[in-house]
Amino acid sequence: MRIDIISAVPQLLESPLNYSIVGNARENGQVEIHLHDLRDYSEDKHNKVDDYPYGGGAGMVLTPQPIFSCIEKLKGERKYDEIIFTSPGGEPFNQQAANKLSIQQNLILLCGHYKGVDQRVRDMLVTREFSIGDYVLSGGELPALVITDAVVRLLPGVLGDAESALNDSFQNDGLLEGPVYTRPAEFKGHKVPGVLRSGDHQKVKEWRFEQSLERTRQRRPDIYKKFLKEH
Amino acid sequence: MRIDIISAVPQLLESPLNYSIVGNARENGQVEIHLHDLRDYSEDKHNKVDDYPYGGGAGMVLTPQPIFSCIEKLKGERKYDEIIFTSPGGEPFNQQAANKLSIQQNLILLCGHYKGVDQRVRDMLVTREFSIGDYVLSGGELPALVITDAVVRLLPGVLGDAESALNDSFQNDGLLEGPVYTRPAEFKGHKVPGVLRSGDHQKVKEWRFEQSLERTRQRRPDIYKKFLKEH
Repeated sequence: MRIDIISAVPQLLESPLNYSIVGNARENGQVEIHLHDLRDYSEDKHNKVDDYPYGGGAGMVLTPQPIFSCIEKLKGERKYDEIIFTSPGGEPFNQQAANKLSIQQNLILLCGHYKGVDQRVRDMLVTREFSIGDYVLSGGELPALVITDAVVRLLPGVLGDAESALNDSFQNDGLLEGPVYTRPAEFKGHKVPGVLRSGDHQKVKEWRFEQSLERTRQRRPDIYKKFLKEH
Repeated sequence: MRIDIISAVPQLLESPLNYSIVGNARENGQVEIHLHDLRDYSEDKHNKVDDYPYGGGAGMVLTPQPIFSCIEKLKGERKYDEIIFTSPGGEPFNQQAANKLSIQQNLILLCGHYKGVDQRVRDMLVTREFSIGDYVLSGGELPALVITDAVVRLLPGVLGDAESALNDSFQNDGLLEGPVYTRPAEFKGHKVPGVLRSGDHQKVKEWRFEQSLERTRQRRPDIYKKFLKEH
């Protein structure tokens, strides 16, 4: 998979793409990630990439020219499956969306900044708009990193043990993952539940399912109801 | 405000905290952000911070000792308003949660990694669990960055123009923000809507409200219904 991320502040994107799971996946050639600085594509003599909004009001808006120049150049080099813009007004990004994106070949992620991007970019270039949650961030960079991470960890071979991704929250019947424990068996007087130390795999499995179900019932009644309906 | 972020991969957190809005807010002294490497708190001779899960299965779990040592040290130095753990099983993080956190003094953000943290940490130390969305990430670092960004941009003086944050999606009657346009007035044959260039502030205001309402109706019927009920 190849991911091209377009941003007015590409430096901001660097460290999360260079460490841990995503960093390793890049080193191992499981994903190619390219950062593009919008300023490199500006035809303005001061390399400007934003301007005041028409109609007045606070905040700057990314101008269409650098974004069009960058995306048209990339589209001339290869076919892209999706050109994704992140904004609070997009469709909610969830695990199903991550699963679907993880089987694509080439993705562009366009990061908005400040007040957003000129609407003509969204009308003419963008194929999908995703919102990573109902909150406002100072730019689209963190959402682009979130989408990248959620997708890259699903690529074949990226997680050490393939089972790990399959056991995540939302992947197992859509339920939340239950509690996990590790050494020591007793810490500050609090013990690991006996069943987890019993060696009885069937009982461990049952306990984990019950805990998962109970946590989902308590914390996410919306997901719990959906699960009951389907099972 | 002071934010302490605890992570097994603190290097991953760096660039998003050093640029743009959050980077500027740190430079201007509007927020103090401290990163803590869990390895520095490990009493294990190899500085180990994770171990296999009890009961078997894939993925590593963060052990309780380094987390307790780090958080107890911090709590000895000042009073914390919240100790936040991010996980897909937490309460949904939204703009209301960001608004509330933005008036706190001291926050700890604990980043899970791999399979998560030992449940005893969540039972005994954590005061709030937030989920930034219904998807699985390779760690709690990006969620911690998302929460930090959403909160820091609301701190007094951080955004150049105070009006800007108030006009965001979700802040205005909870509606999504409508389209924005900037120069040029015509781009590849596509024109900026005339009303935005009319100079008639009342009409611009009405148009923006209608667009905002219409976008919310189309994209987020859940928010639209809630808005109609309340108005």
